[in-house]
Amino acid sequence: MADILAASPASDWRTPNPDYTLYLELDGGRVVLELNPALAPQHVQNVLKIVRSGYFHGLPIYRVQDNFVAQWGDASGTRPMLDGAKQLPPEFVSPVTPGQRVTELPDPDGFAPRVGFLDGFPVAMDQARSTLWPAHCYGVLGVGRDNAPDTGSGAELYVVIGHAPRQLDRNITVIGRVIYGMERISALPRGAAPMGMLAEPEQQSSIRELRVAADVAPEERSKLELLRTDSASFLAVVEARRNRRDAWYLTPAGHIDLCNVPLPMRQKP
Amino acid sequence: MADILAASPASDWRTPNPDYTLYLELDGGRVVLELNPALAPQHVQNVLKIVRSGYFHGLPIYRVQDNFVAQWGDASGTRPMLDGAKQLPPEFVSPVTPGQRVTELPDPDGFAPRVGFLDGFPVAMDQARSTLWPAHCYGVLGVGRDNAPDTGSGAELYVVIGHAPRQLDRNITVIGRVIYGMERISALPRGAAPMGMLAEPEQQSSIRELRVAADVAPEERSKLELLRTDSASFLAVVEARRNRRDAWYLTPAGHIDLCNVPLPMRQKP
Repeated sequence: MADILAASPASDWRTPNPDYTLYLELDGGRVVLELNPALAPQHVQNVLKIVRSGYFHGLPIYRVQDNFVAQWGDASGTRPMLDGAKQLPPEFVSPVTPGQRVTELPDPDGFAPRVGFLDGFPVAMDQARSTLWPAHCYGVLGVGRDNAPDTGSGAELYVVIGHAPRQLDRNITVIGRVIYGMERISALPRGAAPMGMLAEPEQQSSIRELRVAADVAPEERSKLELLRTDSASFLAVVEARRNRRDAWYLTPAGHIDLCNVPLPMRQKP
Repeated sequence: MADILAASPASDWRTPNPDYTLYLELDGGRVVLELNPALAPQHVQNVLKIVRSGYFHGLPIYRVQDNFVAQWGDASGTRPMLDGAKQLPPEFVSPVTPGQRVTELPDPDGFAPRVGFLDGFPVAMDQARSTLWPAHCYGVLGVGRDNAPDTGSGAELYVVIGHAPRQLDRNITVIGRVIYGMERISALPRGAAPMGMLAEPEQQSSIRELRVAADVAPEERSKLELLRTDSASFLAVVEARRNRRDAWYLTPAGHIDLCNVPLPMRQKP
């Protein structure tokens, strides 16, 4: 894979749009989240409003459930929302629009008739390619909700930190994914209470800041590039991982799981 | 799932055999590992010898690669092995023996023709059910090796801490899995060096002790029970997870991934 990336042309890489990039600043450092408005336009716009209102400042990561999710927001239910809707209609599944190009995987997927990547995000589609929905892979960013499907807003957010919980697909709104600093979330101490709740405030990590990259001075922004998932280099990465040819492997798998496909990121040259 | 477990008869539960159970004592507390000699008889016996020689005492967890594995052993290569073979022939794939009963999953798997559970362990089989091999799910314990397939011994061990790296199946010897205390491994700080190496000794967690449960005084042993994967209760758990009926889910997946199947554990009543 390193050889493919080293040989890739600059045009196979893209810079995340700062208008749709969030910086989650934790005690351990920065986590960079890329939002994808194509997956959930209303929720993405709402999260941008909530973030810009300063709502998340100082709120805790109050749930870290091993092999499932880390979640943050106002567990106490006492913080007033100064901007953004408190509830939104669900955006679990979207129609495929004419301009959308999904790079499909050649291998079957147990959870959906078709799977692949849309602008760097793992997605699934129906057989006819008429609707698509995000797949819950490691590092995916979603919007917590209660039992009623319209109870999410983006004031509660979670990141997948374990084996892909694909049973969540089509059941919850996904807005983005972690593109840098994932280990600052995945290595957080797990909550011992049911559902991974961290019962005591001193066990919880605090969010120093959650900001939109566009609102951060350019010199303080993370300089990252992502491999385009519609590029020839990405197709080569997928094939190299479907059938590992490095000296260590004796039996290439001949198959790849959607959530095992690496989504290469690099520091901007 | 809680209802199924609450209603399960005592006979659907088993106590791990202390002769094939390891206690990995870390600063954060105990991790319990169950070995399965059916998967890799020579490696399991060798690991028992190495463990009983005290080899692992004070050695570091020197590699924690995000979304992949945590690995421990003698990174310095200077500790003499007092017992156990230094190299063993690979035990990647085994013939299915007449007495082995695999509880098969009803859903297809992309990596193997058939998958299911053998005595609590996720396994895959060929179409004819003549050979089986362990599946690299979250929490699985394997034996590190170099490029040559016969370079593993059990003096280097790893645990899967991320999305199942099924490409490792049939390429490395698996001997067991974590049955308790997984979060003491999965939440370890990730290594920043290539392959998740923790370059500085002070970043590495130290193994206080690694012991065979049978060698530990009965009153100090962990009192755990595991749901039998050949029980009716386990089949009910699988079905409950294939199609989630709780109030939160709107769209049941109608499918389960081998590595998403919970393997229930409880404290002994």
